[in-house]
Amino acid sequence: MSFVGSGNVATHLAHALINHGIEIVEVFSEKMENAKRFAAEINCSVVESLKNLKATDLIIIAVPDSKIEEVSLQLPENDSLVVHTSGITNMASLSGIKRIGVFYPLQTFSQQRTVEMLEVPFCIEAHYEEDCKLLLGLASKLSNNVKRVSSEQRKVLHLAAVMVSNFSNHLYALANEILEKSNLEFDFLLPLIKETALKAADVHPLDAQTGPARRNDVSTLEEHLEMLKEFPEFRETYKLLSEQIIKKYNE
Amino acid sequence: MSFVGSGNVATHLAHALINHGIEIVEVFSEKMENAKRFAAEINCSVVESLKNLKATDLIIIAVPDSKIEEVSLQLPENDSLVVHTSGITNMASLSGIKRIGVFYPLQTFSQQRTVEMLEVPFCIEAHYEEDCKLLLGLASKLSNNVKRVSSEQRKVLHLAAVMVSNFSNHLYALANEILEKSNLEFDFLLPLIKETALKAADVHPLDAQTGPARRNDVSTLEEHLEMLKEFPEFRETYKLLSEQIIKKYNE
Repeated sequence: MSFVGSGNVATHLAHALINHGIEIVEVFSEKMENAKRFAAEINCSVVESLKNLKATDLIIIAVPDSKIEEVSLQLPENDSLVVHTSGITNMASLSGIKRIGVFYPLQTFSQQRTVEMLEVPFCIEAHYEEDCKLLLGLASKLSNNVKRVSSEQRKVLHLAAVMVSNFSNHLYALANEILEKSNLEFDFLLPLIKETALKAADVHPLDAQTGPARRNDVSTLEEHLEMLKEFPEFRETYKLLSEQIIKKYNE
Repeated sequence: MSFVGSGNVATHLAHALINHGIEIVEVFSEKMENAKRFAAEINCSVVESLKNLKATDLIIIAVPDSKIEEVSLQLPENDSLVVHTSGITNMASLSGIKRIGVFYPLQTFSQQRTVEMLEVPFCIEAHYEEDCKLLLGLASKLSNNVKRVSSEQRKVLHLAAVMVSNFSNHLYALANEILEKSNLEFDFLLPLIKETALKAADVHPLDAQTGPARRNDVSTLEEHLEMLKEFPEFRETYKLLSEQIIKKYNE
């Protein structure tokens, strides 16, 4: 097995695979420095050019979405199964390759945190049925949450993921901003952030909703908008989301 | 100690207090049925009218924000310390009472879930210094995270709490809607939702941000907006939050 790419997805996947006794033979990364660091970490060779990548059972391309097609066009012609790890990219973007597939872990990976890989949903797709089985089997070694998902469905999942992850995180950043202005620590919010997220596993989000907008508590909503006068961005977001919640529950 | 109110905050607080050996003598709730259920749960008496509430060391008013003043005006005149549990309500809204304070647990409480009370930030305020010490001491029995917080600061915390909890939950609801439309289960998102929240404890939200808006990945952003054509609400939210993220990182 080989890796193209050396970012967070590649790093987390590679470590999980190695922990399950799977050998990684070669890595390629556009930046030689990163390739060397990554190869040292997982004890394998560095390839200096994509066209020299050896034939192997599986090549995992974990590079930015916009680079996937470019990378696939540079791979040598051989019989290796080639997959990408992207949420939004069509499987067919792996151009000029016979055996293609997708190996998409629906999770946010960061340098600073170890992820519970066993819980991560792996979204699997492949052109050939045999390859699909192979990828499902491989993913099942890493996770208890492996699903066969079409390119169309994967795009919807990716969009929903942006909503619950990137946008929630943006709300954390906005909240942090107004707390800082009042000399209050962001840590105050951590137990609430955690509980709100964990609750989603037990209570449907429509039933879990609470707060002033849910109750259509006009005086609190007005007081909050007044407080946000000096934070126009925050205010606009507060207004839009509150209006949507009011509409959902009070019409 | 007595409780006015029998909702989620009253219920969770009462159970935590009882678990620490604190006796609750009486409860009052506007709806007799709720009062009886609550009193049976915590093994205490029901009071049928607020003006009959006995003098006691502490009366905790855990009712909707809009009812706090009304309740306080109906309490009998005596020397009991009276607190409310609201984020947004001024301590002074406890009208006509001498010893007043605030006992605000910054958390979302629901029937279906047990909360780790030891982590919950308790925001304490009182008119008299002696009462403040008393409340700080009481809260410290329940939680390791007790802070003295002014009414002004508490309002800012409450606003930030709406943002990270109610609004994040609204994003979960929107994501759920588009997944349902594609026959995909919300469960796909749970590990991501959890990791995004837990990450906030380790990585500053500004550093934790990832995704298409953070990268100003125009082609993904456009594809997502195209996919959201049938979800105008979702589309507006996507557009606004993405623009804010792009601005934050790419200007």
